[in-house]
Amino acid sequence: MTDRHRPEFPEHITVTVLGLGLMGRALAGAFLRAGHPTTVWNRTAAKADDLVARGARLAGSASAAVAAGDLVVVCVSDHDAVRAVLDPLAGGLGGRVLVNLTSGTSRAAREIAAWAARQGADYLDGAIMAVPGAIGTPGALVLYSGPRPAFERYEPVLRRLGGARYLGGDQGLSALHDVAVLSLMWNILNGFLQGAALLGAAGVDATTFAPLARTAIETVTGWLPDYARQVDDGAYPALDSTLDTHVAAMAHLIGESESLGVDPALPRFVKALADRAVAEGHGGAGYAALAELFRTPAGERP
Amino acid sequence: MTDRHRPEFPEHITVTVLGLGLMGRALAGAFLRAGHPTTVWNRTAAKADDLVARGARLAGSASAAVAAGDLVVVCVSDHDAVRAVLDPLAGGLGGRVLVNLTSGTSRAAREIAAWAARQGADYLDGAIMAVPGAIGTPGALVLYSGPRPAFERYEPVLRRLGGARYLGGDQGLSALHDVAVLSLMWNILNGFLQGAALLGAAGVDATTFAPLARTAIETVTGWLPDYARQVDDGAYPALDSTLDTHVAAMAHLIGESESLGVDPALPRFVKALADRAVAEGHGGAGYAALAELFRTPAGERP
Ligand SMILES: NC(=O)c1ccc[n+]([C@@H]2O[C@H](COP(=O)([O-])OP(=O)(O)OC[C@H]3O[C@@H](n4cnc5c(N)ncnc54)[C@H](OP(=O)(O)O)[C@@H]3O)[C@@H](O)[C@H]2O)c1
Ligand SMILES: NC(=O)c1ccc[n+]([C@@H]2O[C@H](COP(=O)([O-])OP(=O)(O)OC[C@H]3O[C@@H](n4cnc5c(N)ncnc54)[C@H](OP(=O)(O)O)[C@@H]3O)[C@@H](O)[C@H]2O)c1
Repeated sequence: MTDRHRPEFPEHITVTVLGLGLMGRALAGAFLRAGHPTTVWNRTAAKADDLVARGARLAGSASAAVAAGDLVVVCVSDHDAVRAVLDPLAGGLGGRVLVNLTSGTSRAAREIAAWAARQGADYLDGAIMAVPGAIGTPGALVLYSGPRPAFERYEPVLRRLGGARYLGGDQGLSALHDVAVLSLMWNILNGFLQGAALLGAAGVDATTFAPLARTAIETVTGWLPDYARQVDDGAYPALDSTLDTHVAAMAHLIGESESLGVDPALPRFVKALADRAVAEGHGGAGYAALAELFRTPAGERP
Repeated sequence: MTDRHRPEFPEHITVTVLGLGLMGRALAGAFLRAGHPTTVWNRTAAKADDLVARGARLAGSASAAVAAGDLVVVCVSDHDAVRAVLDPLAGGLGGRVLVNLTSGTSRAAREIAAWAARQGADYLDGAIMAVPGAIGTPGALVLYSGPRPAFERYEPVLRRLGGARYLGGDQGLSALHDVAVLSLMWNILNGFLQGAALLGAAGVDATTFAPLARTAIETVTGWLPDYARQVDDGAYPALDSTLDTHVAAMAHLIGESESLGVDPALPRFVKALADRAVAEGHGGAGYAALAELFRTPAGERP
């Protein structure tokens, strides 16, 4: 079976990268390493020097750069910068696939999607879950959303950047998954850093705590599939401890924090959430019952 | 090298288990399976039936049970229950090692330590990081604190329960580590459940989110050794993003939560923490700078 949109030698596909900040340079570098003819453009042209030395073509304008590429990747600081770069391009994108790897909101992604549709371009929004130094390695995950055929046509090229996960047709999904994942990361780090502060006040190094924290994290990770199923089912039988039991231990955490003189604000917030779930009748349920709280803003629950 | 305290056949060591709730029965069962002569006692004697059928000796009183064991393990609901069981034993514990696996506070552990010292008993406080069903498997981690010789003498016996980690001489350390680990777990679950609520509002199942969450968790876990070193050093160079960059993404998370109608309370709390760190001059630092906030209660920082 052949597909005229999927050349057998994806390295013949030409790529354009607009924006050569830390991340844009890493992206262009990965395309170059994989052998794609790569055209680059940046507001400040000097940032292209190193890439040009490695074989990239520097375009004198964003529209000249766009004319040279089958696949057009934009990665600048934020949504305003994206508009500043894209707006002047107008019809130049017709028939191309535009991939925007700038961090933003789902609303911004949908706005660009509507604009791109008017230009006759296919639009994929992406979120890079990696630092520039990891780009080009399998550990660098990038999330994509938008028309599936556009993703599939260029998937082999996009995989030059690292892992590529397709989320669905709604271009807002990448930004949403991005903040959901970041939020999980911030909460993990907060939990670790508060625990480290608590133990630190008792003379235990964070470096000593880290391996135990790792074990705890691996344990929780093992629970997630069951918790996820409970969230999807909207039923939260206690798999191990009940929320009532958790709340009792949360009170201990607050007491320990207070008596060691470390900030009890995060433990108090965590307990207040669980207390609310108990007050709403979930005391005998498992921890995942908190999903009910997160679903509906406090003021709007019955 | 021989050690008269470490018999070559640890299964000859006699064990007493006081308290046969869900957890106490699991503990006694693991000692029995490993071949230790095991004496049990519970306020409600009927809970011993199954263990007796498997070879345990049921004592008629807690003091008779204590007299039968080299190692005495107590696991009842809470600190008050521990006092109710132990107080009448008074001198009966002399020369023995008492291991308390009841969840509690570091203050309670130190109080029992002082009491045990007056009885001439060695005291180890422990925290079980596992559910009853896991006891006896290598994945069941139990934390211990108290005199190191007492731990080392009985370590082969305690390892019948699962993994055994010794934390130090201060008996309060087990309870402290217990709440620090639980706190990390609650924060992870909160981050996951809020993210699941957000994506759920956009039509994405929690089951679909779970594998991505797992990848994110593994990524953060890989950062912990560096973050821990920064906390110990009190210096927080940005390894990847700065706090300023995180704060911008936190604003996106709040916006997405609000526009999807899910509870923005947790994202707002997370951003308020980071905002405070930025206000204290850490905007250009890495995320671990939040350790400074957690170390000192808000009202007491300069
Ligand atoms: N760095 C990371 O670790 C990382 C990780 C994941 C996602 N991201 C995302 O990737 C994107 C780029 O990040 P970065 O690290 O590359 O940022 P950066 O190093 O600060 O680069 C910013 C880029 O945006 C351009 N730019 C800004 N305003 C512009 C305007 N009005 N018109 C034209 N170009 C403009 C800059 O051009 P000049 O050179 O002319 O200033 C530069 O190319 C951001 O959305 C970021 O959130 C970054
Ligand atoms: N279950 C878990 O998943 C788990 C995990 C980690 C740690 N832990 C900790 O392990 C401890 C025991 O938990 P569990 O699950 O076994 O609880 P449980 O099933 O509720 O059993 C409670 C035990 O405490 C005894 N007890 C309560 N008050 C007493 C009193 N005043 N005098 C004498 N005995 C008394 C009960 O005796 P009766 O039978 O006579 O009522 C029973 O043996 C708790 O501190 C818990 O936090 C449990």
